[in-house]
Amino acid sequence: MTLAPIHPVILCGGAGTRLWPASRRNQPKQFALIIDGLSLFQHAVRLVDAADFAAPMVVTGVDQRFWVIEQLARIERTPGSIIIEPDARNTAPAVLAAALHLAQHDPDALLLVLPSDHRIADVAAFREAVVAAASRASAGDIVTFGIRPVRAETGYGYLEMMDPAARDAALPQTLVRFVEKPDAVRAQAMLDGGRHLWNAGIFLMSARTLVTAYQSLAADLYDAVQDSVAEARLEAGLTLLGKRGWLKASSISIDFAIMEKAHNLAVMPFSGRWSDLGDWDSVWRDGDGDGNDNVLVGDALVFNCQGSLVRTDVPDQMVVGLDLDQMIVVATNDAVLVAPRASSQQLSKLVNDLRKMERPQADRSRRDHRPWGWYESVAVRDGFQVKQIVVSPHQALSLQSHNHRAEHWIILSGTARITVGNSVHDVDGGGYVFVPLGAIHRLENLCDEPVTMVEVQIGSYLGEDDIIRYADRYSRVGMS
Amino acid sequence: MTLAPIHPVILCGGAGTRLWPASRRNQPKQFALIIDGLSLFQHAVRLVDAADFAAPMVVTGVDQRFWVIEQLARIERTPGSIIIEPDARNTAPAVLAAALHLAQHDPDALLLVLPSDHRIADVAAFREAVVAAASRASAGDIVTFGIRPVRAETGYGYLEMMDPAARDAALPQTLVRFVEKPDAVRAQAMLDGGRHLWNAGIFLMSARTLVTAYQSLAADLYDAVQDSVAEARLEAGLTLLGKRGWLKASSISIDFAIMEKAHNLAVMPFSGRWSDLGDWDSVWRDGDGDGNDNVLVGDALVFNCQGSLVRTDVPDQMVVGLDLDQMIVVATNDAVLVAPRASSQQLSKLVNDLRKMERPQADRSRRDHRPWGWYESVAVRDGFQVKQIVVSPHQALSLQSHNHRAEHWIILSGTARITVGNSVHDVDGGGYVFVPLGAIHRLENLCDEPVTMVEVQIGSYLGEDDIIRYADRYSRVGMS
Repeated sequence: MTLAPIHPVILCGGAGTRLWPASRRNQPKQFALIIDGLSLFQHAVRLVDAADFAAPMVVTGVDQRFWVIEQLARIERTPGSIIIEPDARNTAPAVLAAALHLAQHDPDALLLVLPSDHRIADVAAFREAVVAAASRASAGDIVTFGIRPVRAETGYGYLEMMDPAARDAALPQTLVRFVEKPDAVRAQAMLDGGRHLWNAGIFLMSARTLVTAYQSLAADLYDAVQDSVAEARLEAGLTLLGKRGWLKASSISIDFAIMEKAHNLAVMPFSGRWSDLGDWDSVWRDGDGDGNDNVLVGDALVFNCQGSLVRTDVPDQMVVGLDLDQMIVVATNDAVLVAPRASSQQLSKLVNDLRKMERPQADRSRRDHRPWGWYESVAVRDGFQVKQIVVSPHQALSLQSHNHRAEHWIILSGTARITVGNSVHDVDGGGYVFVPLGAIHRLENLCDEPVTMVEVQIGSYLGEDDIIRYADRYSRVGMS
Repeated sequence: MTLAPIHPVILCGGAGTRLWPASRRNQPKQFALIIDGLSLFQHAVRLVDAADFAAPMVVTGVDQRFWVIEQLARIERTPGSIIIEPDARNTAPAVLAAALHLAQHDPDALLLVLPSDHRIADVAAFREAVVAAASRASAGDIVTFGIRPVRAETGYGYLEMMDPAARDAALPQTLVRFVEKPDAVRAQAMLDGGRHLWNAGIFLMSARTLVTAYQSLAADLYDAVQDSVAEARLEAGLTLLGKRGWLKASSISIDFAIMEKAHNLAVMPFSGRWSDLGDWDSVWRDGDGDGNDNVLVGDALVFNCQGSLVRTDVPDQMVVGLDLDQMIVVATNDAVLVAPRASSQQLSKLVNDLRKMERPQADRSRRDHRPWGWYESVAVRDGFQVKQIVVSPHQALSLQSHNHRAEHWIILSGTARITVGNSVHDVDGGGYVFVPLGAIHRLENLCDEPVTMVEVQIGSYLGEDDIIRYADRYSRVGMS
């Protein structure tokens, strides 16, 4: 390999309700959907974890940064940089921010833009395709990756090539044009014609090429994002984009802003397995089925079922399907969904209905990632709640008190420095501390290992909003 | 009312797998199936809680006695007596034991034999029917209760009357014969003919009439049960039948042993709502449906569903059905079942398959009733388990220790006398006690209120069999 390494840019800002109840606003699809023990984000990181690639740049949101940090740590990967968007503005600003960030050091560096919530199963083939496209990208073209279609899908955009033979090429081909999501008849015609590939939202080009494209095709957006990158500051290893410039950028996809207008486009055909896992039907399609096309995840069992997806994230609850035909069953610790597979597309509407009913399950999962680590409410009963809590190394919960609950803390592993009122103790695994109702308290992890603990809350009211913060290294004083 | 009170005999010995996962071997249907906040057993007790009835006699098994005691306490009812069978022998021995028990004091007393796992919704109409049948029963007849059929059911036996007009009678009628469970054609013919009623297994007669019937129609059974009643002893308010005699009694239903052979039979027609709740389909049928015939129990929601049963016992997990048609979804804290309603009858086979796979969920629920009260495992995770524990007034856990786990006890309410090693403390609500791995410990409730507590077990192995008993008031030393 004589080429300079390719810089992956992993886009991590989305949320998505079509995989409810596994994904929520506070638990986006790319972090929540676990396949073969890894999240989609972790799969994306591993996809480009190879000799030809630099450490990835991750572009994500303020609320998702702790997911990124924790999930990278769990697979022991160090990112090239983590770029934080002040708020979500679709893909065009995010990709430009990454390109400008990279161009500061090396304008000729190649960027590989990758969504974090898709799945490419044929890892080796994909890496080969990227490497094969590198010369064309270095020469100044924007190379899109086109997936060979396997059905007349109406949910994706398409990429049109000159002729059917191009699909089998091992090098980038001429891109005639982008085609918007088609109706069923048009989709079938494109599938039959053989000149169209699925647009997977994956792009390879040099930082310079991309910056130039924005300058000429989306000048306002360029100015706004350029300001934001100029204002960016590095904090605790994160690149925080400047808010002033960012808020001037319009929220628009890179397809609309750049790709559908650019002329220096090529397409690299890819015939490996790819899925956008956009809904439960496509998760079922992407899974490895049993002899009757059932996809089972977690402690799931089927008896005389066919074509069904049965999955559970709950470690101590089995899910059993009997005589099911083309159904989906998805269980999490606060919600179970049962529907025909054909109804997968109705889920956004259902989640909206749950929102109108003010059901917390619509948006919030019982596991929550916080600046200091994460917790999961494992059981809520009359008069008590049990939480499993993990405090990351060198992190701390705020100095706080509660008006309606006492807390019993049982340390499972690590060493916690615990303040209750005026007393401070270091407590090891197996240790216990009582936090009386109203007592000011804090937990700090001064060590290199996580602190894991069980908290039993006792009280007549156990809501998350019963918290008074006195001091907080994450600037949350006065917030719940 | 000038009649002497009628003595209800509630038969409570059954188990049943057709309502899995709500019912289990350690959580029989009559105690586990909750409708309108009460179990079927509690509904049966309330059914006969009226001026014309004496306090009920309950006939149950050794393993079920704590369910009976706890569920009676929860509805604040005191039984006339609780008769404990040494093992389960079907209904014929159970009914005779109750009759002999009653005959000791009053051979002319009337017995109303009631299954505990059926449901009669029209309480007032049923009580009226029983009272209307009393004279005939006092005159020496065995009065069966026949439910007016509402469909061509093949799962029940039938009672044949002289003519269709008899169905509308307000007094007992001549019973021509018992009809075994029919095929579909025969069931339809009986439904159309109007001379047949469903056999609900409910009988009214005097103790003397019944004892005489056993003496002439089942003499061996009579001798065996008579021995067992003669040997019975009263212990802690329970009548424990003698084992020696009981084990000689054959396991046979009262229908086969007596009813199908007796000549002094009458049938009292009853046209109120009745259900045997024999499977989920019949639970659905018995429930109050929404406008689309969906029956919802617990935190269950449906969107565009019809004819479906969606029920959950889990307080902190919602169950959502989308576009379901004639389905059942049943969630408990360790298992979720999803199946078409039409597959309800396949459940015994499914539970058998789970048994072959050695899945504990086949037979054991996570709530377990013990001599001293009950516990429920509310969450099991890597390295810890959380149990909610209730210790009944004046009861105690055995003096015990564990080889693989430490326990953290948090008292929610009541006052517990807790022994750990050589120290003894009285601990109130809000209090905490640590039980180190290996420490000999005991919890006693010396008060009139239950002790409720949360136990957090910490250890690498958390199985129920990690227990060494040193002293136990319930004679379980040496047992796990």
